[in-house]
Amino acid sequence: MAVKGREKVLILVIFVSYSLAQTYFRSLELPSECKQKKSGSRDNFFDISQLACQPCNQNSSVQTHSADGLSCVCQPGYKLTQNFGGVAITCEKCPSSQPVTSADGWQCVSCNANNRSLTSNTCPSCTSVSDITVERLLDGQWIHGTPQRTCQTCAAGTVPSADGTRCVRCNQVISMLNVQNSCDCQAGQQSGGLCFPSDPNLPTGTDFTIRVEESDVTSAFFRDNLGAAYEMCKFDSTTGKYGNLTACQTLGNMCMLTYYKDISTVGSSGSAINRKACELYDLVKGSSSQDWPPNMPWLYYSENGKNVLDDTGITQDYYVSPSHANSKLKLIVAKYALNGTFLGLENVTGDTLQICSGNLKMLNAALQFGTTYSLSCQVSMDDLWDENKYPLIFYDLYLEFTDSSGARKLYAVPVLIENIDSTKHTATNQEEWKMTRRFFLIDNQALKTPPSTTTGTTPTVTPASTRAKYVRYASEMTLTVRLQNGQTGENTANKEGRIFPPYLRIKYLTAKEEDIGTGIEVDFSFSTVYTMPQEKFSQDVGIAMAVFGVMAAIWGLLRTWSWYKRTGRVGIDFLTLIKFVLYSMGAVGNAFFVVMMGAAFWFLLFFKNQGIALLVPQTREQENIYVIYISVAFALKVIDLIHMFIMHSTIDIFLIDWERPKGMTKKEEGVVEEPVSIWRTYFVANEWNEIQTFRKINTIFQIMMVVFLLHVVGFENYATRDAYSRLHFSDTNYRAPYSLVFRFALGATVYLLTGIVQWIWFTFFYERFISDPVREFVDLCSMANVSVYIMENYLYGYYIHGRSVHGKADTGLKDMFDNLKREENNMCGQRGLLPNTDQQTFRMALPRRMRQQYDKILLPLQAQAGQPQSRMDRGPSGQGASQFEKAVTAYETVNRLLSSFIDHALRDIDYIVKDKLLFENILDAEFEDTTLRGHFYNDSGHSFDGVLFYGNEVTLFIFDLLFFNIVDLIAQNFVLAGVLTYVMTQLIVMLRDFSGKKNLAKKTLVDERFLI
Amino acid sequence: MAVKGREKVLILVIFVSYSLAQTYFRSLELPSECKQKKSGSRDNFFDISQLACQPCNQNSSVQTHSADGLSCVCQPGYKLTQNFGGVAITCEKCPSSQPVTSADGWQCVSCNANNRSLTSNTCPSCTSVSDITVERLLDGQWIHGTPQRTCQTCAAGTVPSADGTRCVRCNQVISMLNVQNSCDCQAGQQSGGLCFPSDPNLPTGTDFTIRVEESDVTSAFFRDNLGAAYEMCKFDSTTGKYGNLTACQTLGNMCMLTYYKDISTVGSSGSAINRKACELYDLVKGSSSQDWPPNMPWLYYSENGKNVLDDTGITQDYYVSPSHANSKLKLIVAKYALNGTFLGLENVTGDTLQICSGNLKMLNAALQFGTTYSLSCQVSMDDLWDENKYPLIFYDLYLEFTDSSGARKLYAVPVLIENIDSTKHTATNQEEWKMTRRFFLIDNQALKTPPSTTTGTTPTVTPASTRAKYVRYASEMTLTVRLQNGQTGENTANKEGRIFPPYLRIKYLTAKEEDIGTGIEVDFSFSTVYTMPQEKFSQDVGIAMAVFGVMAAIWGLLRTWSWYKRTGRVGIDFLTLIKFVLYSMGAVGNAFFVVMMGAAFWFLLFFKNQGIALLVPQTREQENIYVIYISVAFALKVIDLIHMFIMHSTIDIFLIDWERPKGMTKKEEGVVEEPVSIWRTYFVANEWNEIQTFRKINTIFQIMMVVFLLHVVGFENYATRDAYSRLHFSDTNYRAPYSLVFRFALGATVYLLTGIVQWIWFTFFYERFISDPVREFVDLCSMANVSVYIMENYLYGYYIHGRSVHGKADTGLKDMFDNLKREENNMCGQRGLLPNTDQQTFRMALPRRMRQQYDKILLPLQAQAGQPQSRMDRGPSGQGASQFEKAVTAYETVNRLLSSFIDHALRDIDYIVKDKLLFENILDAEFEDTTLRGHFYNDSGHSFDGVLFYGNEVTLFIFDLLFFNIVDLIAQNFVLAGVLTYVMTQLIVMLRDFSGKKNLAKKTLVDERFLI
Repeated sequence: MAVKGREKVLILVIFVSYSLAQTYFRSLELPSECKQKKSGSRDNFFDISQLACQPCNQNSSVQTHSADGLSCVCQPGYKLTQNFGGVAITCEKCPSSQPVTSADGWQCVSCNANNRSLTSNTCPSCTSVSDITVERLLDGQWIHGTPQRTCQTCAAGTVPSADGTRCVRCNQVISMLNVQNSCDCQAGQQSGGLCFPSDPNLPTGTDFTIRVEESDVTSAFFRDNLGAAYEMCKFDSTTGKYGNLTACQTLGNMCMLTYYKDISTVGSSGSAINRKACELYDLVKGSSSQDWPPNMPWLYYSENGKNVLDDTGITQDYYVSPSHANSKLKLIVAKYALNGTFLGLENVTGDTLQICSGNLKMLNAALQFGTTYSLSCQVSMDDLWDENKYPLIFYDLYLEFTDSSGARKLYAVPVLIENIDSTKHTATNQEEWKMTRRFFLIDNQALKTPPSTTTGTTPTVTPASTRAKYVRYASEMTLTVRLQNGQTGENTANKEGRIFPPYLRIKYLTAKEEDIGTGIEVDFSFSTVYTMPQEKFSQDVGIAMAVFGVMAAIWGLLRTWSWYKRTGRVGIDFLTLIKFVLYSMGAVGNAFFVVMMGAAFWFLLFFKNQGIALLVPQTREQENIYVIYISVAFALKVIDLIHMFIMHSTIDIFLIDWERPKGMTKKEEGVVEEPVSIWRTYFVANEWNEIQTFRKINTIFQIMMVVFLLHVVGFENYATRDAYSRLHFSDTNYRAPYSLVFRFALGATVYLLTGIVQWIWFTFFYERFISDPVREFVDLCSMANVSVYIMENYLYGYYIHGRSVHGKADTGLKDMFDNLKREENNMCGQRGLLPNTDQQTFRMALPRRMRQQYDKILLPLQAQAGQPQSRMDRGPSGQGASQFEKAVTAYETVNRLLSSFIDHALRDIDYIVKDKLLFENILDAEFEDTTLRGHFYNDSGHSFDGVLFYGNEVTLFIFDLLFFNIVDLIAQNFVLAGVLTYVMTQLIVMLRDFSGKKNLAKKTLVDERFLI
Repeated sequence: MAVKGREKVLILVIFVSYSLAQTYFRSLELPSECKQKKSGSRDNFFDISQLACQPCNQNSSVQTHSADGLSCVCQPGYKLTQNFGGVAITCEKCPSSQPVTSADGWQCVSCNANNRSLTSNTCPSCTSVSDITVERLLDGQWIHGTPQRTCQTCAAGTVPSADGTRCVRCNQVISMLNVQNSCDCQAGQQSGGLCFPSDPNLPTGTDFTIRVEESDVTSAFFRDNLGAAYEMCKFDSTTGKYGNLTACQTLGNMCMLTYYKDISTVGSSGSAINRKACELYDLVKGSSSQDWPPNMPWLYYSENGKNVLDDTGITQDYYVSPSHANSKLKLIVAKYALNGTFLGLENVTGDTLQICSGNLKMLNAALQFGTTYSLSCQVSMDDLWDENKYPLIFYDLYLEFTDSSGARKLYAVPVLIENIDSTKHTATNQEEWKMTRRFFLIDNQALKTPPSTTTGTTPTVTPASTRAKYVRYASEMTLTVRLQNGQTGENTANKEGRIFPPYLRIKYLTAKEEDIGTGIEVDFSFSTVYTMPQEKFSQDVGIAMAVFGVMAAIWGLLRTWSWYKRTGRVGIDFLTLIKFVLYSMGAVGNAFFVVMMGAAFWFLLFFKNQGIALLVPQTREQENIYVIYISVAFALKVIDLIHMFIMHSTIDIFLIDWERPKGMTKKEEGVVEEPVSIWRTYFVANEWNEIQTFRKINTIFQIMMVVFLLHVVGFENYATRDAYSRLHFSDTNYRAPYSLVFRFALGATVYLLTGIVQWIWFTFFYERFISDPVREFVDLCSMANVSVYIMENYLYGYYIHGRSVHGKADTGLKDMFDNLKREENNMCGQRGLLPNTDQQTFRMALPRRMRQQYDKILLPLQAQAGQPQSRMDRGPSGQGASQFEKAVTAYETVNRLLSSFIDHALRDIDYIVKDKLLFENILDAEFEDTTLRGHFYNDSGHSFDGVLFYGNEVTLFIFDLLFFNIVDLIAQNFVLAGVLTYVMTQLIVMLRDFSGKKNLAKKTLVDERFLI
């Protein structure tokens, strides 16, 4: 768009004027800036409607800004003539006869000179401190009939009031620290703003220091008030002097401020010379047998910590169920200011004692019974000096409870100050704990130092520094609630729902004035912890462990005995002992797992569903024993798994080919014997290789499902240390920390249930109606006319009878089809080993001679180092080839031996087929002696999967489950646990596949390249 | 342990005394309870040291508790004789001559009767309102020399002070609402606590109502102050009356309280009769062209909303990088009380305007530039009435910025009140928005109603109800910041980092007094939203879409052409068009994915790394278009996948057995031809079945890894709508809501990169050094002497040459070993189709006659319905059997046909072997005509995997990726996405396995029970 020159200018003008009319901003001016500003000869004030500086109505000689800068006022010597609260304030110069502006600003007055000279439009101040400045009489008339300002001296027994406009009665002590002036007080009688009688008895040599970071800092407040507080607090019942209540509180506050330095070390009596604050407190307290002396604050317990905390005075039942009325800790604080003023009783809510801010609902969770709570935050260090934001308040903490008669009681909550300044007491040994009562949150006043370091015996009132040199703050606060329940060997009737006294543990830290402005942030945290003795529970777990452990050991013994028989040993040797240990380990691992999972799940279920408080989750320390047990169970399962692994990877397996030679074929090179094709054997070996790591439970689906349920659906959230069972937390719900025991309970339970559901699905549906790889393998053997002979132990193994009912299987498509067809139409015999049976799979207990024969043939081969057939496709060595020829011969011999054995065609070596006894089945052992005559035991069709993953699902499953939960216990992340469990299971499968394949190739002479 | 009777008692006694000494609780007593309590004849006070009621020192006739209950005071007619602030307070009865306690309590006075009679130890109050009560003169002397209390009348021009102890000057207006008494004011001149001159000009018929929930509620504050505020605010520059600044603020506040009812509808002039608050404001404002009139608050914008919000007056560059100084929105509020008092300017921090409490660091995130913020909470409705907790404050909001010269400026932030009470303006259409300035957070004062509903023209001051009938609160507040950047077709030089005026949108809700105590909770939320026009970006995406889309369509055309040739079609039919659509869909899906992923990732990278603010994430509305694009891409990929699925499940496949017949064998039944064993074919078919769904990328590992990276490692956390790139959020970090675009960018990128790493690992390491299932299959074919003949299209397919170099493979173990050995030692020919080559795999473009021959043999079979061989193991029908016999015959015929073809033994049907041209390879098409003579193209050894998952990794991978991300976009949960993707991929594999197995069994006549 082309715009001609003139139009351009026009547009510009319009634009400029438009934008001028549309200016939505102006310069930022602050009231303090306006005070500095001048517009010509006028001063400026800050116009609250425009948020900008405006000049006053008149020159700066007439008007100037007010103290707050928000309006204009007349200069001294001028009086107001108009002021409507707007900009149109006008002033007028006072006449020379009455040159001074009156107090209300609207009139002019003269000064009653009184021997004092007038300067610059203000009257000189009165000479005496007991003078007041007066313009009008009480009834509003000018004091001398004319506008005049004059001084009057206060009459005897009166002093000027705070604003100096009238005289008031000279007061006796009413409130200790409020009276600033004295009527007639000698220097030696003054202390703490008070005037003591002429016989001052203030203590001397008092220690005004507070120990901060290895050095003693003199507190201005102590210097000014400690002596007076001591004196005022003491009570002589005969004279009635003084027993001032606020003074006693102040004394107590000061003792607390020294972190109870040397409390209860001075005897019940003694002189007040050279004392610290707490010693003065003790002196006033005297020999009172009560911790809570009359008139005075209760500062500490004379009993030792353990006794205090074992008191059973709280006779209220607490409930964990959040809906119950007694499911809150009703805390009450009595609040006192530094000067002893009582600030009232207050119900503690989330924000009363927590410096960290937050949603009140969340903060209130700190007082929900049974909810383990922890909140921490960082606060700018500079803010700590803000006395408005963080006033110094002293708290006495109480627990409100209702006793059996329904009366409301206050139970004193003991406080454990970690910083307690006492050589006798520490915060480490509970027996030595000195329990105290009073505490503050942030002290930003006590460590204001006096300007000069005069620590004389009679301090004079000089102003203190305006900012404390150090601020001390309650960085860590922990409220610990102990249940009475849970101990062994006692009647629990009166302990259910009852608690021992809760106690508050506080750790103070110190911030230095030098660090202001460096941007340091300080940490605050508040926690609520519930504990109970776990003795009873631990005992129960221990008993269960012992019972199950013994049973497991017995099972291990049985397994060893069975193994011992199956290997045909003749004496108990070292290997037998090793085997016993290994079998026991596996069983004990299972036992540990069962006990731990049962205990953890019981605990979770009970805790989340209890009404009256019976138990609370283990603390982190108490959880350790659980974690150790679970870790031990896992370690045992690892050994069990390795044991199984080695056993499976070293089995003897042989594929018996039943195919008869095809006879002689006439070829160009003459009549040759056509060999039986090896491909059926290849096929069977290939399939065996494939089913080695097949499992009933799909581990990946298992992991996905478990992670889905725990993390996505949110069962994980049940593991919080509170009584809520929430699948999802909203932003306003407090999320309590996780309990490791609960996480284990949830993780293990969900894993187990998912596994059981999968197992049921697989066993009752998938295996029957969709696909059963193990039966399919047996089926394949039958069709391929190949039997499988598996030796797990020296004299024990499995046999899959795969002899084709058609006599031959090495044939073409059409014959194969005809065979299948015949079988379907029941036009041929059954597949079983015995005539007219279907039983194709057996456990074998072999006669020793059979095994010796077998070994005699194969031993020379295996004695040669290495696996010849696995090298044959690599090394071009002729030696390997000749070695293989021998192997092939041996292979054919074994084939003949085994097929003869099965056909009962061997002399002296025979077997019978029978059912196993019930107990034999249950114990997985053979009672009868089979060294002379072998036994073939009918089985369920699945016995040989004992050397596959398929038949060892339980071991593998418990291993996976424990691995999953161990990872979660370490990382507290179920997703990570899922990922790592996936990796672990895949590694195990790969390892098993690899070793199984090697073993299969070695034992069956099938080249590995056919095992794909 | 047996304890004898006496010992038992002793122990009990010790125990009882011990437990008495240890009582750490006492009854809960409150100060208010102590006031009610009596101990004998004494009243009680609350002892602050013991937190318990204590009796006063003297009888209740002498002493009683103080007003606060914390101490004792003398009864009237008694004077203090001792008070040290403790319990030992003593009182003494006043003598009958001076029977009244003095004001300070320490003395007794008589009453100066003044015609008034003394009753019950107190002096009667003074009769006149202009009287003061006096005991002492200004200088502290008794007024009549003796202790006496007397009344004095204030002199003319003075009135009693607030405490009634002296007379002060009768004031003119200084601060509008502070003067409670008048010196000489007629009833008609009083208004709003002020006394107007004798010519009162207060408006009449003023509307004192506020519209709340469909009804007009009269406000006591309006009734008392509206007229006066109007009158005081008006400014006559000639008389200087009155222009009171606070009155103008009050007037503005009242207008705001009506939600700006009918603002700017009255003209610039008119009478003040029958007006509403805002009309009065407009009348005072008069014809001022400025929105911000002098002396008055700025309440509204005269421009329409769109122009206000499009202003470019904020000439500061904002930065997103959190470390930059200009990365904060510096908001300032001017605060005013309801009565117009200016409460100061305040820098807005997190807790200034947010009712929701929380960690200050988190709340401050609301003002971090570029951080989308949202916090909501619930507050107990009852609390809203608490005027200390929620004082009624009016806010004018400003943005502080620094202009190019470095001067600090205040930019007025417009406010959009959704509840604005105007028929002309709505909150829906931006053109009609009425932007205003002033707002409150919680109004719990304006809706206090006058006790009687007198809405007369001259209201009298009667006390209002103490609790507001309604509380109105700002339930939803949204601060919207719009970037100037991002529009198309304009110079962006001056727009980078610049913002349009932010605006605050407020929705007020109302709480009713009736609902107090019902436990209702009300919602509060505060949000900060950043927006920018996405035109430019959308345009760029659109262009990319178009370019890639066209390219995709061209690619689809090419694929269709190639397919057209390969199927040997002679005309373009409907199927060809369908094919074109299908091929294009797949390509367009890819194009969409590439563009969307690129755009999203670019946006994420750019946003998180920008310094000066150039862009902000899409809002939820702007994101929708992205979600739609991604969904479309996914839908296209679904169709692509189904298309691929159908193609793969319908391929023709034939296994050519090269084994020669074994010749005649002499058997008992005579000389029979020994058939070639089918087991090698079974083996090859079985392996083919197994590699069908083998993929280069392990999807489960992929999913696990992606979930691990996104969720466990925490890349997910990069997707927040703020400038931080944090892997983990601490509890104190604000967690901004997720951007869907960012989630897609992260999810897709991590998925893609993980996939690429897996692909590289597989291609360059695993395939070469560990296992290559495809090559192993080819290897197996060679060893089994079986070739695989695959027809993907009518005239196009793949050939795997598996002819054994040894002539035969159907042999025994020893022969097999010898064969392998010979081959290793290079003692036989090479495996290739052509002599002395290794090339075993080919693409085939077949002559039409070959295909016709093939079909002629197989067609009769396939014309019969059903798959005979799949039924053969079920139905006992003889028909199936005879059907199968035909099939076997056809099978043998095809075997002969194909082997002859490969051996060049067919007349008229022949082929040549050649390399593909470069372009043929790139375009995956054949240029030459092959209808007469077939072409076998050498390939990389992997071409035939085009009919397996193996060769279609990209399609499958993009499908998985999109599925994963679509689930995440819906659920915003990567773990759930992982789980569902796992389920989906497994379903696809199962489906493909199932259909592939069916097809394989049908086409190769291999029984399904061998495909395990």
